[in-house]
Order: sequence, then structure tokens, then C-alpha cells
Amino acid sequence: MKGAVIIVAGGTGSRMQSTLPKQFIELKGKPILLHTLEKFYSYDTSLQLIVVMHPDYVEYWKDLCRTLGFTVKHDVVAGGKERFFSVKSGLARLRDDIEVVAVHDAVRPLFSAQTLSNCFDALKNHRAVVPAIPLIDSIREVDEKGNRHVDRSRYKLVQTPQCFDRQLLEKSYLQEYKKTFTDDASVVESVDQSIFLVDGNQENVKITTSSDLLFCESIFS
Amino acid sequence: MKGAVIIVAGGTGSRMQSTLPKQFIELKGKPILLHTLEKFYSYDTSLQLIVVMHPDYVEYWKDLCRTLGFTVKHDVVAGGKERFFSVKSGLARLRDDIEVVAVHDAVRPLFSAQTLSNCFDALKNHRAVVPAIPLIDSIREVDEKGNRHVDRSRYKLVQTPQCFDRQLLEKSYLQEYKKTFTDDASVVESVDQSIFLVDGNQENVKITTSSDLLFCESIFS
Repeated sequence: MKGAVIIVAGGTGSRMQSTLPKQFIELKGKPILLHTLEKFYSYDTSLQLIVVMHPDYVEYWKDLCRTLGFTVKHDVVAGGKERFFSVKSGLARLRDDIEVVAVHDAVRPLFSAQTLSNCFDALKNHRAVVPAIPLIDSIREVDEKGNRHVDRSRYKLVQTPQCFDRQLLEKSYLQEYKKTFTDDASVVESVDQSIFLVDGNQENVKITTSSDLLFCESIFS
Repeated sequence: MKGAVIIVAGGTGSRMQSTLPKQFIELKGKPILLHTLEKFYSYDTSLQLIVVMHPDYVEYWKDLCRTLGFTVKHDVVAGGKERFFSVKSGLARLRDDIEVVAVHDAVRPLFSAQTLSNCFDALKNHRAVVPAIPLIDSIREVDEKGNRHVDRSRYKLVQTPQCFDRQLLEKSYLQEYKKTFTDDASVVESVDQSIFLVDGNQENVKITTSSDLLFCESIFS
């Protein structure tokens, strides 16, 4: 199966009090996004790599790649206001021969090769595959009436790369945008497609705070 | 309000393929449990500190404290098979003058002073206070029929220290043990007591894997 990866790098840096969006922050001397791209490339050099980012940063990124001598081939696409529209822009850039598509958060450089192969292997028998891990902490459900304990074994934390049959993903992204679309699985699920879960890896955190960054640095060293 | 902390150090090391239970593993040259004790002591030297651990390790720990010259005063109590019974053993050791009790996981050395004061401040108006943080990742509900997207803003991840009015906690632990008791909030809630949530801190992870340990090391340095 010929595969592509749409890497969503939409961050604008607000949460880390940084003017630089998270995906460009340096981790061991290289922007996080570059680590992420290298990881997919080293897994399979034939993957089509598509990076979607805010239009303001497209030239910045291209310059940065030239400065760093980063030569892994990838398409750079201008994204939309919400993640949903960014993925849609990425889909429009798929090569004709692509059969399966992984959608990945740029700020998750620590997905493992095992996680990725769990996803791609499962795509042989399923059309929508998502890596997930068990909850370690207890969780509580919260609403206007208060909060209550729920059985954590009934929930899983969802990661990326989320992997799909191309046609299914394209069809799913023809829907109207809804606020409840927090990831691709939620988009695909709402066209009545069931999601198959595979094991993710615990280190595969989404870098949103400076302590996440410290964590990734310690894993990389 | 006179306070005590019951530190549950029940781990037996199975998840990290270590013969040494997690609470004894070294973090920057000192056992994790020692960091945890020091943190409570530095917050308030008047807190009664009670550590509950598997009977097999009580002497090991006492020896270790002597070797390391660790002089922060604390009681060491032999725990039970489940966390529930360990907390119960800890409760039996409370000084008569104690009015509020925090129950804490030994392997969470990264709770912040702010988290602890959030809890203790709220105890002035509530009988059961628990620190919690929002979910960053999407979650899915899983059962025998499959899995489905749920709105993550309706859930919070629960941490420790979980803090209670002493009488309430003692009363709650008179119940029969149930398998659904994954933390103290769930025990207390089942005697019809509502739980008040305060902000926890994101770094306050429960050390269960070697990558959690790396994370804590990077935070400590």
C-alpha cells in the first residue's frame, strides 16, 4: 500500500508563552518538526510527506530547511483556521497513487516505529486505525452538576498517527466542520465508520508545555 | 487545621521490570520516596507523615534512611494487599489531634506547593478536595461493542494528594472494599460525599515507566 503522512503543524505558540510556534522550537539542536519528519522518513523513505502550517510560517520554514541543510523531501501546504481545514488542505495535495494516509501532530516526535507499524499492519484489515494507550491516572466526569468517578478502564487516550484508507478519509472530510472534531478519528467516525484501536507508545506525548519539552529532551539523550 | 499525610508506597516493581519497587528507585541520587517526604516536610514541618509500604520492605526502608542519614520524622506502617487496605492501615496511625488528611502516591514526587495549598485552602470550605488537570489528548470510550469518541472537556485527570476531613475519611474507609476504588475520592464518594476539584499541576505524574523517571530527572535538574 502506498502511503502518505499529513503532518499538522498548525500551532501558533500561545500556550508556551513563546512567540515561536511549538513545532519550530529546538529539541536537541533541531526544530521539533524536523525530528518528526526524519522519523517518518527513516521508517519508510517512500512515504509522501505533507506538512500543513499557518500561511505566515511557510516561507520561514522553507528558509529554515535551507539553513539547516534539511533535504528530506516534503510538501509544504498552507493550512486553515481549525485543524479540520488544515487536514483538508493536506488531503488536496495527495499524490494520485496514494492508498493510505496517516495524519500526525507535528509536536509528537516520540511516536515509535512499533506504533507506526501497528497502524499500517492493521490497515490491511481495517479502514480506520488509531493508536491508543490506557489511562494511568483516575479520571472524573465533570458537568454543571458536579463531578463523579468513572471507571478508567473504559477509556483510552488517543494519539497520532491516525491512519486511514484514503477514500474513506477524503469522504469524511467532505462533511461540514463541527466543533466536536478534536481529531481525525472523530471526523471519520461521524460518517458511520468504526475505529480500530492499536497499541500506541506511552512516550508519544503531544508537546504542549515546557515540561513536555524537557521530557522529550531527556528521551532523546 | 492540623494535618497528616498518608503516603502510599505499595509498589512492588513489576511494571518497570525492576526488582526494586518504584518508590525506592533513585532519582538524582535519592530514592523517590525520600524526595516525596522532603517535599511535604519543606511545605510544612508540622505535618504528621505516615508512609505505608509492603511489610517486606519496612526494614529495608528503615536501614536505607539510616544509611542516607535521612532524619525527617515519619511513621512507617505495614500495608495491605490493595491500596484500600494500605490507606486504612495509615489511618490507624493518625495522631489524635489530626483534623485533615492528605493521601498521596509515593511515586508522585512532582506535586507542587501550589497544588498542595490549593487543596488545603479548599478544605476550609469542603470536606473532600482533589487536584485534577484537563485532558490534553483525545479520549475514546471502549467496551465490548467497540469504541467511540467522547468530549474530553467533560473529563479531568485526577492526581494526588487527595485531601479530606479526617472524620469523613475514617468513616469512608469503614466500607467494604470494592474493586472500583481506584483512588480515595472514589472511596469517599461512595458514602455520598461530593468531591471538590482544585487545579493540580501538569508535572505531577505518577512514575510508572522508565520514561516517567527520565521526565522527573529532567524536571529535577
